[in-house]
Amino acid sequence: MIVIMKHTHTENDILNARKIMEDGGVNVMISKGAETTILGAEGNADYIDTERLTVLPGVEKVMRVSEPFKKANRKYHPDNTKIKVGEVFIGGKDISLIAGPCSVESEEQIVGIAENVKRMGATALRGGAYKPRTSPYAFQGLKENGIELLIEAKEKTGLPIVTEIMSTDNLDLFEEKVDVIQVGARNMQNFDLLKHLGQSKKPILLKRGLSSTIEEWLMSAEYIMAGGNNNVILCERGIRTFETFTRNTLDLSAVLAVKNLSHLPVVVDPSHACGKAWMVERMAMAAVVSGADGLIIEVHNDPAHALCDGAQSITPKQFEELKGKLTPLAQCIGKNIM
Amino acid sequence: MIVIMKHTHTENDILNARKIMEDGGVNVMISKGAETTILGAEGNADYIDTERLTVLPGVEKVMRVSEPFKKANRKYHPDNTKIKVGEVFIGGKDISLIAGPCSVESEEQIVGIAENVKRMGATALRGGAYKPRTSPYAFQGLKENGIELLIEAKEKTGLPIVTEIMSTDNLDLFEEKVDVIQVGARNMQNFDLLKHLGQSKKPILLKRGLSSTIEEWLMSAEYIMAGGNNNVILCERGIRTFETFTRNTLDLSAVLAVKNLSHLPVVVDPSHACGKAWMVERMAMAAVVSGADGLIIEVHNDPAHALCDGAQSITPKQFEELKGKLTPLAQCIGKNIM
Amino acid sequence: MIVIMKHTHTENDILNARKIMEDGGVNVMISKGAETTILGAEGNADYIDTERLTVLPGVEKVMRVSEPFKKANRKYHPDNTKIKVGEVFIGGKDISLIAGPCSVESEEQIVGIAENVKRMGATALRGGAYKPRTSPYAFQGLKENGIELLIEAKEKTGLPIVTEIMSTDNLDLFEEKVDVIQVGARNMQNFDLLKHLGQSKKPILLKRGLSSTIEEWLMSAEYIMAGGNNNVILCERGIRTFETFTRNTLDLSAVLAVKNLSHLPVVVDPSHACGKAWMVERMAMAAVVSGADGLIIEVHNDPAHALCDGAQSITPKQFEELKGKLTPLAQCIGKNIM
Amino acid sequence: MIVIMKHTHTENDILNARKIMEDGGVNVMISKGAETTILGAEGNADYIDTERLTVLPGVEKVMRVSEPFKKANRKYHPDNTKIKVGEVFIGGKDISLIAGPCSVESEEQIVGIAENVKRMGATALRGGAYKPRTSPYAFQGLKENGIELLIEAKEKTGLPIVTEIMSTDNLDLFEEKVDVIQVGARNMQNFDLLKHLGQSKKPILLKRGLSSTIEEWLMSAEYIMAGGNNNVILCERGIRTFETFTRNTLDLSAVLAVKNLSHLPVVVDPSHACGKAWMVERMAMAAVVSGADGLIIEVHNDPAHALCDGAQSITPKQFEELKGKLTPLAQCIGKNIM
Repeated sequence: MIVIMKHTHTENDILNARKIMEDGGVNVMISKGAETTILGAEGNADYIDTERLTVLPGVEKVMRVSEPFKKANRKYHPDNTKIKVGEVFIGGKDISLIAGPCSVESEEQIVGIAENVKRMGATALRGGAYKPRTSPYAFQGLKENGIELLIEAKEKTGLPIVTEIMSTDNLDLFEEKVDVIQVGARNMQNFDLLKHLGQSKKPILLKRGLSSTIEEWLMSAEYIMAGGNNNVILCERGIRTFETFTRNTLDLSAVLAVKNLSHLPVVVDPSHACGKAWMVERMAMAAVVSGADGLIIEVHNDPAHALCDGAQSITPKQFEELKGKLTPLAQCIGKNIM
Repeated sequence: MIVIMKHTHTENDILNARKIMEDGGVNVMISKGAETTILGAEGNADYIDTERLTVLPGVEKVMRVSEPFKKANRKYHPDNTKIKVGEVFIGGKDISLIAGPCSVESEEQIVGIAENVKRMGATALRGGAYKPRTSPYAFQGLKENGIELLIEAKEKTGLPIVTEIMSTDNLDLFEEKVDVIQVGARNMQNFDLLKHLGQSKKPILLKRGLSSTIEEWLMSAEYIMAGGNNNVILCERGIRTFETFTRNTLDLSAVLAVKNLSHLPVVVDPSHACGKAWMVERMAMAAVVSGADGLIIEVHNDPAHALCDGAQSITPKQFEELKGKLTPLAQCIGKNIM
Repeated sequence: MIVIMKHTHTENDILNARKIMEDGGVNVMISKGAETTILGAEGNADYIDTERLTVLPGVEKVMRVSEPFKKANRKYHPDNTKIKVGEVFIGGKDISLIAGPCSVESEEQIVGIAENVKRMGATALRGGAYKPRTSPYAFQGLKENGIELLIEAKEKTGLPIVTEIMSTDNLDLFEEKVDVIQVGARNMQNFDLLKHLGQSKKPILLKRGLSSTIEEWLMSAEYIMAGGNNNVILCERGIRTFETFTRNTLDLSAVLAVKNLSHLPVVVDPSHACGKAWMVERMAMAAVVSGADGLIIEVHNDPAHALCDGAQSITPKQFEELKGKLTPLAQCIGKNIM
Repeated sequence: MIVIMKHTHTENDILNARKIMEDGGVNVMISKGAETTILGAEGNADYIDTERLTVLPGVEKVMRVSEPFKKANRKYHPDNTKIKVGEVFIGGKDISLIAGPCSVESEEQIVGIAENVKRMGATALRGGAYKPRTSPYAFQGLKENGIELLIEAKEKTGLPIVTEIMSTDNLDLFEEKVDVIQVGARNMQNFDLLKHLGQSKKPILLKRGLSSTIEEWLMSAEYIMAGGNNNVILCERGIRTFETFTRNTLDLSAVLAVKNLSHLPVVVDPSHACGKAWMVERMAMAAVVSGADGLIIEVHNDPAHALCDGAQSITPKQFEELKGKLTPLAQCIGKNIM
């Protein structure tokens, strides 16, 4: 941390700033120039009361030098974290394909899709039971029944299930029955939920918020890890920008950035990012090349009758074609499609 | 709702689209041109399955004509909603001033500030007991103790208290003890929380999400109202843009827009919007002129020692000066500062 | 300027960094801590080759401390710059009202509007002769004829004229005939144009770019000033965000910020910012309260037949009403409406 | 085009709206429902005066159905446009690699880099002679001398040269000496420049503006094409968002979108998009997979001493490695690296 003093500062201002820094447990280096005086923190600056420093008379600016995330930081954990989901690991050489419908609609639908995507190479089944909808009047999901139907699909296919939690009321249900607990983009900074998931023994798939910076995203992972659960899978799903052609703007450079900054695995959701089924294949391919450890893709047997997000769902046949195209691409970058 | 067909559509495509629309309870008007065929919905299009329409073969585009929010819509409730908070109403001629620290820190602090701002004209006391912090390692608030201290300040001053809920676990506590329950920007689309607050009998102060459109914001209000709680106070607190000089970008045109689209009262939080204490006064003044029904302002006896957000807190003296400047401005637009 | 070294830096890395800084004409202060070594520049860091520093081995980060704009900076010119436009000064106690149509359409139109707005208190006439249109097929303005019609309106009313330049080919024409030369948002970083305008003797009204930061905006003013023309009037006209209800998002906190950072006058264009005529009055009022030195407003005798931007144009009668409402507001903040 | 009437419209309002539409050369279909009346345009709606329609009493909303770009539209030109640059075509099966420094600095530098990148497979040489810099005090390029040095490098290597034009004053110079004329992001809506380039016989490389929508970008291409120059190469170079880790946010879904909407070739500039040399390789790979027809990459013999953008420049050796990795990837998607 660096503190830049105003050119009108007094000696007393420096003493006060120094004290706050030292109270935070660091040594303070002082550089006095003709116009600028700078205080540099030596040691771990995490416990310095930045807020107080910032408002101190005589202080111009406080600049943080180090990343605020620790457990999620690759600096302290150079090796990739690999997280077991069903029979496979996410975060290693193998690229995971998580596929399934936006929402669970019926036994026939979810079991049918599960069997299809299993046969075509999916490693996990996604499907919403509790659905976050902008409108209170829209279909909100089959809820507990939806979870039961996912379990049934799992029993028939062996695919582990990934589904979104929306309420801490359902923590026990999810802990018992779900393989990977998904946190949606709109809950990425629902800190109460994150803290509870820090107590979970299940892997958490943490979607990036609509307008969350990479740092905020990693800080939300840090919330879960600080609670003791290190099994966090990050998920890039597009950010909100001024562009309206796509539903969101897929930020593939964020995948590369996060793989550099953190040891956690990252998957990409091209379906929500683009919002158009015809864009999914190419963006999925680009995502793998940019370094994603997996993909989470909306697949529906009958997109025209999907209860939600049909416009961005591909068919099982399209999923199979996608897999065929991903296989040689993955080899080019030293990875495997299972 | 309008459905535009692809120029390659078949008669069967039109039949299918028409059926989905009629199933939603509307009459369908068909206009066939040489190049374009358009289907228009006549009646209430809210129950049409838009998702299915969108993915239908032969459909180019589905365009919604009417606003999706109903209970929050001024069209159906032309008069301003006035919400009683303590002795005053928010949403009428009187402008409410909600003031207090970012977080409750101690009895001395919160009671001291409460007494000060009460004397200077505040109509309610704000103060965070549960704090949403980006970092799990930052001060998270005094929690239940913080609520108790707010109650104490209320007893000493008569000021009703406004504080943020972060967890559905605390619903009973807030329902019993808090006068206005605040939903933070990061929880604006925490739909589970919104549904629970639909059951509350307390007014809800709903902050706009960091990158929420005006429509999404009103839809979140609609969630609460759909549950039966019509006492929603909207709060503009700045949106996230590319600009970094201010913490957020205060969107005063949104205040004007929302007052036009909805009958709900709107307050403005210039403190979080700007993130700089010296900007609060002017932005508060501009907010009142743009039509805000109230202001929520961070005031701290000793900003330099505030545990959070000191940089954007003004002192009680500055609050008093602000009030002095607001009074004639409010008169100019036919309103009162109490 | 501060340079933070990587914790893997060598002595040689420090020597190299120091040399680049000293070549830029500053003294270098070095603070060595256990983990962090920091180099601080003492003196004017403007001539340091930041690019080279940034890529030096051993350098983690280069942080600039001071603002890069000098001539536009209030630090070195504490007093407000006042720019004479016609009979009035922009930047002092008087608030200027620049009014007129989006584009000049005919003699009758522009002279008629000019006479109307003059009578109602406008201090200058705006009107586009050269129009920047997204589509090459849209009306591009009356061009040189438009300028002639503006001159005619000026002769009839005495109002100075403000109009946009789109091409350096027209520099002589504008220098001779136009009172205030406007640079549009899309040309804010057309550096070639800015450099030429640095040679002009006319005041320049510099609109903020659609996604320009406050700093970039001031740097574009700096381009003009560096060429010798200090008469730059800044114009906030809304920025591009994710919100689609308004055409742009009016950033009134930028007005306050720029008045603090710079001595240059700032006017606000609520018409382009909102894109809706009914929003203009309130946003104009809020702009004045937030510190704007003037307003530039689209006024059309017959918005329904305007060749462009009719949806955001107000009528002369509405302009008169607006002026009536601005007068007491301006008094509240110690300013005058002429 | 569709016009939705207010539910308070009169018969006269419909007559007026209909007249404006018919004046634009279309037939009008009218659908009257109980609550909604809709007017649909049948035929080419491009010449309808949308502005006038929008402000007509009784009109609620005007919605455009068709894309406003015609010459750039794939609908009317289904085949890919292939543009000859030197010996190769951009827009076909071969992927072009345009490489070179941010700015031309000296004969030794530019010829050295040109020889290096030529040997390693570049198909064109990039290099700035006129540099758009945010600060008027920063290095502005070698200007005409820079062009001469590029010519020299071209003579030594045979590589065609790509360089940015900043002023219409230089049109003749560029027309005579430059192979591909680049329009920078900040000039994407410098319509005067675009019109002049419509007269050029040289291919134009048109960078996407910092906050330009896909539609606006294609409309700027349309400006050039409307003037008669169909040789427009689009260039995605990252858009401005709230994220600050990368210099811009590379929007690869825009590449896919533009290839779908338009027949024009698209190249990607990962260097400016990311602003970090270590990110270039992966983002270049992802760009090719997402459908880019070429890459434009900053390569410098000695990034540590580059006069600009050193932080994002890769070395010739890294460029060679990149090419090695692109070759098998391109094969996977049926393309060639030359």
